[in-house]
Amino acid sequence: MPKQAIVLLSGGLDSTTTLYYALNKGYQCQALIFDYGQRHRRELRSAVAVASGVKVPYQILKIKLPWQGSSLLNKKQKIPTKGVGRGIPSTYVPARNTIFLSFALSFAEASGAEAIFIGANSIDYSGYPDCRPEFYRAFQKIIQTGTRAKKIKIITPLIKMTKVEIIKLGRRLKAPLDLTWSCYQGGKVPCGVCDSCRIREQGMKVTALS
Amino acid sequence: MPKQAIVLLSGGLDSTTTLYYALNKGYQCQALIFDYGQRHRRELRSAVAVASGVKVPYQILKIKLPWQGSSLLNKKQKIPTKGVGRGIPSTYVPARNTIFLSFALSFAEASGAEAIFIGANSIDYSGYPDCRPEFYRAFQKIIQTGTRAKKIKIITPLIKMTKVEIIKLGRRLKAPLDLTWSCYQGGKVPCGVCDSCRIREQGMKVTALS
Repeated sequence: MPKQAIVLLSGGLDSTTTLYYALNKGYQCQALIFDYGQRHRRELRSAVAVASGVKVPYQILKIKLPWQGSSLLNKKQKIPTKGVGRGIPSTYVPARNTIFLSFALSFAEASGAEAIFIGANSIDYSGYPDCRPEFYRAFQKIIQTGTRAKKIKIITPLIKMTKVEIIKLGRRLKAPLDLTWSCYQGGKVPCGVCDSCRIREQGMKVTALS
Repeated sequence: MPKQAIVLLSGGLDSTTTLYYALNKGYQCQALIFDYGQRHRRELRSAVAVASGVKVPYQILKIKLPWQGSSLLNKKQKIPTKGVGRGIPSTYVPARNTIFLSFALSFAEASGAEAIFIGANSIDYSGYPDCRPEFYRAFQKIIQTGTRAKKIKIITPLIKMTKVEIIKLGRRLKAPLDLTWSCYQGGKVPCGVCDSCRIREQGMKVTALS
């Protein structure tokens, strides 16, 4: 029987590349997609298109974070558009990746999957603390101490790659990057000025030139 | 301003005692209650009665675990009734406390609370891995590495107490133990033979005699 994995899929460039990476490594994948009140809910359509396109079964989990605490959830706040700064931006969603991973862990344990893939990146990123390697090492300890399965591995293939390297990897794996959605604003077309648009476009520009 | 805390409240004896413990320590508390498909959904009524009785604001979060993986969620499975055994019983819900804590962490971070209280116990318990001290130490690392707040503390006042000690503490704090619900079966009256009933009744019997 092939190795089983749960892949966290947002519909963005990184998670899509991660899904293709996992498939390429021979994992039989199931995708987990979260509808958590993000203002760029539009990314869900991309996630579904990506999973469907490669015939990966997916589930959309709807969760509520009534306390918000992020400009990515609260439409009364403005999304920063002046370029990626230092520190943690207002788009950071408190404990989001901990929540996503905990559901993935429950799913992995219940279904017998041996790995959880997440496309976190700590190089060309928005500065979220839950995108850094030390967080994923800590989560691995959660699995060892708090579950029956104990041996499920968190795999973060992109964690130390630049955006350019991620885009190149995605193209090499024939991931449908054109289907993906990155913009935090979630309008009809990407705004081009939020952190996520800027990081993506910078990467696209460089890879187009190389 | 008083110290703020999030308290995970199931409606059982342990979490109710924990809520009273936190209040007694001077924390201004908010309770988080989960409707996660548990067959003893009846415990939610107890949780609401307990929180309301002490005028603690509460939120009920509805979450879905479509993969189940537990006799506490899947009504086609039987709840074990032959007494607390060794090992992890079928009532264990994969990653449940990781999920609960991750929401509590998000709430704490968004609201500025400095502590999360959970009534986990590793002495008179059903053998769940996510009720042991090493799991909570690991989760503390999640907070340090994966959040902006960093300093939120997980507090597990009951973790090394016997059920008798918990009941005595609850009574001393005037917690309304008669309102609480423990039975896994979730029928009209407690079944008396599931692990949770057995542990509770044993404790009640001993404290009645002492």
